[in-house]
Amino acid sequence: MRKIHVIGIGAGDPDQLTLQAVRALRGTDVFFVLDKGEVKSDLTRLRHDMLDTHLPDGAYRVVEARDPERDRGAGGAAYSPAVGDWRSARAEIYERLITEELGEEQSGAFLVWGDPALYDSTLAILQEVLARGAVTFEYDVVPGISSVSALVARHRTGLNRVARPVQITTGRRLAEGFPEGVDDVVVMLDAHQAFRQYAEEDVDIYWGAYIGTPDEILVSGPIAEAGPRIERLRAEARERKGWIMDTYLLRRNPGRE
Amino acid sequence: MRKIHVIGIGAGDPDQLTLQAVRALRGTDVFFVLDKGEVKSDLTRLRHDMLDTHLPDGAYRVVEARDPERDRGAGGAAYSPAVGDWRSARAEIYERLITEELGEEQSGAFLVWGDPALYDSTLAILQEVLARGAVTFEYDVVPGISSVSALVARHRTGLNRVARPVQITTGRRLAEGFPEGVDDVVVMLDAHQAFRQYAEEDVDIYWGAYIGTPDEILVSGPIAEAGPRIERLRAEARERKGWIMDTYLLRRNPGRE
Repeated sequence: MRKIHVIGIGAGDPDQLTLQAVRALRGTDVFFVLDKGEVKSDLTRLRHDMLDTHLPDGAYRVVEARDPERDRGAGGAAYSPAVGDWRSARAEIYERLITEELGEEQSGAFLVWGDPALYDSTLAILQEVLARGAVTFEYDVVPGISSVSALVARHRTGLNRVARPVQITTGRRLAEGFPEGVDDVVVMLDAHQAFRQYAEEDVDIYWGAYIGTPDEILVSGPIAEAGPRIERLRAEARERKGWIMDTYLLRRNPGRE
Repeated sequence: MRKIHVIGIGAGDPDQLTLQAVRALRGTDVFFVLDKGEVKSDLTRLRHDMLDTHLPDGAYRVVEARDPERDRGAGGAAYSPAVGDWRSARAEIYERLITEELGEEQSGAFLVWGDPALYDSTLAILQEVLARGAVTFEYDVVPGISSVSALVARHRTGLNRVARPVQITTGRRLAEGFPEGVDDVVVMLDAHQAFRQYAEEDVDIYWGAYIGTPDEILVSGPIAEAGPRIERLRAEARERKGWIMDTYLLRRNPGRE
């Protein structure tokens, strides 16, 4: 039976790999890398460096494929269907990779930045591949340090306050309003700095980009003060590196605790 | 300058330690262990086993102290003040440990199950110790695999659905109502199985206890079906081991994705 590991490899610091992840890397015959194109070649290199560190004899095989283009032009309502099409297109690619590149008794792995449980589609795609019925395999998941955990560790703060909830959401959702019933909100996938619309409120922001890498940038403080600085640093870094990956925690009424 | 590491050591599987955590363990002179009493001696032993594995020459010192009793009899409204008193009592103990047991140039560590960012008071207590002004130290945080990440990895599912939010909350909060604006909710610290009140609704539960340890128990399914099984297994395990640590994800309208 073919076996697939979905391995969380942490948020960017190679030392965030768990011992379990290292063990899974060492038990893998074929690594599948879906390249998103040139812009994130830093990340592809970082992933190769991890493999070279933990599999020093170089006895591993990497199979690269091109990610299907996602319809990023789609507006709010069209978002989910576009994701659906994209997921099916990916499922076809994954199916082909597993069928053609992995022997019946071999182990393959997908390496996922952060934690496969948060805003990552690998698990859903593998389930779709299984549902299509053309290939069978076993699979397991190795949890990783998410960019959320890494962010707050670097800021030396918690996600939640005592006995209170925390919500993890997207920039798109935050733009529609501050979530109900929570004062601590982590925002991912925000290309438009939705935090700006809360600059007049009593909200602190804990922001980070390229967390755990040599390019790491951290900024925190009331949005009114920290926000403009974040916008400037974010634009500069994006220009310089060609891509950015950032996350932030918003904490409403920070003094009330 | 004294240095303190707050190290997330994962949810129970010793292989969930990150390479960064192992490095921090090896750079620590004194480990502070706050014992919660006999009931969790399994956890204390597991922690000692981790130290023996990664510091095989035994060249480390463990200082144990007794956690102050928390007023668990307090009802809803009294919860926060009771926590406040308890935190101050802990701050006094931490201050004494750091002042008396750690040399000026030494490194100490607090080992935290899961991730120090989620429902753990160590960071807040250290900040309180610093605010008291009697002792100064530097500190950093090593993020860990939370029981939340470990839970969903074992169930091979994600925390959020595509482009949707997830909330992490407490059993006490869930008992007050299903959180607004989210359909995916992780519940921690639930001694009363608050999920039972949603058994009539279209909600799936992904439950786990002692995750990542040899005692691990996993159950998933619609609450109406899985709930009674969870209650029975939970009661049996608690009786057998003397303590339980469990977490669950609720997913409302699971078919709608």
